[in-house]
Amino acid sequence: MRDVYVVGVGMSKFGEVWRRSLRQLFVDAASTAIKDSGVDHLDSLYVGCMSSGMFVQQEHISALCADYLGMAGIPATRVESACASGGISFRQAFLEVGSGVSDIVMAAGVEKMTDVDGDGATAALAGAADQEYEVFHGATFPGLYAMMAHAHMAKYGTTSEMLAAVAVKNHHNGSMNPVAQYPFEITVEGVLNSVMVADPLHILDCSPITDGAAAVIVTSEEVGKKLGKPCIKVLGSGLATDSMALAQRADLTTIKAATIAADRAFKMAGKKLSDVQFAEVHDCFTIAELMVLESIGLYEPGKAGPAAQAGETALDGKFPINPSGGLKSKGHPVGATGVAQVVEIYKQLTGQAEGGRQIPGSPKIGMAHNMGGSGASSVVHIMEVA
Amino acid sequence: MRDVYVVGVGMSKFGEVWRRSLRQLFVDAASTAIKDSGVDHLDSLYVGCMSSGMFVQQEHISALCADYLGMAGIPATRVESACASGGISFRQAFLEVGSGVSDIVMAAGVEKMTDVDGDGATAALAGAADQEYEVFHGATFPGLYAMMAHAHMAKYGTTSEMLAAVAVKNHHNGSMNPVAQYPFEITVEGVLNSVMVADPLHILDCSPITDGAAAVIVTSEEVGKKLGKPCIKVLGSGLATDSMALAQRADLTTIKAATIAADRAFKMAGKKLSDVQFAEVHDCFTIAELMVLESIGLYEPGKAGPAAQAGETALDGKFPINPSGGLKSKGHPVGATGVAQVVEIYKQLTGQAEGGRQIPGSPKIGMAHNMGGSGASSVVHIMEVA
Repeated sequence: MRDVYVVGVGMSKFGEVWRRSLRQLFVDAASTAIKDSGVDHLDSLYVGCMSSGMFVQQEHISALCADYLGMAGIPATRVESACASGGISFRQAFLEVGSGVSDIVMAAGVEKMTDVDGDGATAALAGAADQEYEVFHGATFPGLYAMMAHAHMAKYGTTSEMLAAVAVKNHHNGSMNPVAQYPFEITVEGVLNSVMVADPLHILDCSPITDGAAAVIVTSEEVGKKLGKPCIKVLGSGLATDSMALAQRADLTTIKAATIAADRAFKMAGKKLSDVQFAEVHDCFTIAELMVLESIGLYEPGKAGPAAQAGETALDGKFPINPSGGLKSKGHPVGATGVAQVVEIYKQLTGQAEGGRQIPGSPKIGMAHNMGGSGASSVVHIMEVA
Repeated sequence: MRDVYVVGVGMSKFGEVWRRSLRQLFVDAASTAIKDSGVDHLDSLYVGCMSSGMFVQQEHISALCADYLGMAGIPATRVESACASGGISFRQAFLEVGSGVSDIVMAAGVEKMTDVDGDGATAALAGAADQEYEVFHGATFPGLYAMMAHAHMAKYGTTSEMLAAVAVKNHHNGSMNPVAQYPFEITVEGVLNSVMVADPLHILDCSPITDGAAAVIVTSEEVGKKLGKPCIKVLGSGLATDSMALAQRADLTTIKAATIAADRAFKMAGKKLSDVQFAEVHDCFTIAELMVLESIGLYEPGKAGPAAQAGETALDGKFPINPSGGLKSKGHPVGATGVAQVVEIYKQLTGQAEGGRQIPGSPKIGMAHNMGGSGASSVVHIMEVA
């Protein structure tokens, strides 16, 4: 497979974006990415989206997005793996450029989640869990992650204060991100006193429901270098799955698919975790960030919580996690999230992170980890400044 | 890109399959394909599915399908482009094997459509059209294709009898297909006297609502030859898009995306239409088959209808179309359809078509055309016996 680059990025505003529809959010992000990269056409388009069907009754959004970008005719494909849809969109663009079939591919992601009421969004999101073995019996996503959090607390002594430390860190980072849905600081006390959603997860342990889109331009090395813009190289991609239903897993305190996906990505990249300086990881709930960091081997089981409290994963810590603000503060338009992570890796590696959230010391290699459902899909990418 | 082969295929029964769920239908097809090919593992899995969300409230079916196949852990990705989802699943497997990243990839497709009532299925299928510009105003899919049929009749003198000839031919072929939903003969008079759905389309001009799954094993040349089973080579793949809403197209009597997708596939294959001996094409409605055959250049505009009446596209005609029975007789589980087309191409090219529907004269090259919505997506593959 030939080398693959990222040469430009774009995002829509994340939030409750009442005045923009799904197709408009996509165009906001896509047109920004095209302008940022300087490309004059696309060979093809991938769009990650979890559930445009249940959220806005619209399927077939690949063709719709190509059309509204003014590019009807180009090959366009939607991919879906619940909240990992965006990461998989990026992976497919990487494979297509790598195969040599295309030179310039857009990997985008979009979700319009606020056109249904609260119950409708919860019902759509439940489509990421096992309908027959979990949802039918009343499980919701906060409930599933709450069970994982309880198991983690019981086994390792993880506390609500450790979970809160993750939320506080990510809100601090997100307070410097101009597109973030909730760009403000919170406190540990604020998290602990916020409404309980599913014990032990308070509302400030949960990522929000968000409208938004993100897009990146993926090219061959030749095209990337010719454009003369800042670019990064994709070193490796790993995708893995696990049982959907929690009841069918051997251990609730680890995300096995994250472990496997990271191993595959590092193997392809010819790198190890110690070569990486920072990461965006899938913090749909605070407990998820801790479990992922332990599953990918950054911390021993049970040690990620104390590390968060000690500031090790802060922007100025020894391994910054979620400099963008993460899903928690930036927002979590599920299909867009994995692409938005790549946007942040690109900005950090090329020194373009706004608002004071640039990681000190010019990081050279970053990692994006995007997860579907309660962990049945994980997709990991390793990227290096070019 | 390196050469890519198909080495084994499988299908579930197509029809109103009340006793099998989405995941079970997938496993039926997937386990048959694995057994047929003789592979002992999969490097990755693609699943085409249009709207498991709106049909059975289940998203994230890539991981679910991998798990229920007993292969949790492997990379698995769902792709969606409405009724072209299956063809795109095959295209992604082709690209992944071609890139060199994987040697053995399953391309599958599945749809479970009969767990909702009739209105629910119509509403889900409407997700393939433009919600804001078509569906909101009352358009359904039979209505959209009826408008295209009226335009074609007005411009070229196409008649209801010509449309009926397509249905009669496809039912004749399907009567020999053991997995077909409606494996019986019909008559032109029967079509013309059947209930009118959307003038001029009678119910026997329409493909049915179907549960079903299909799967094929896609490999590198080296793996394919080592298995020692009959195999075919994928020569070219073409994908194209068009405006979603009919109102935004210059001409209602042609499927522009089919023209472009076929051109792209032939260009990659280094072949022309005259090199091909038969095709599976997307006959979601009888008018669709005629328009596609004209759009890909097999017939001049307005000539496909008379050709169908003259038997030119019959099994023993000069260019057999839909030897499987097509969507009309075999059934149309939307996400599975494009993969089921590849299954038929494989069977015909390797001389394994059952029930007396083998095309005479050992065809060497076949073509599959799969379409999304009212034509906003088309994906074409050219395959040759290896």
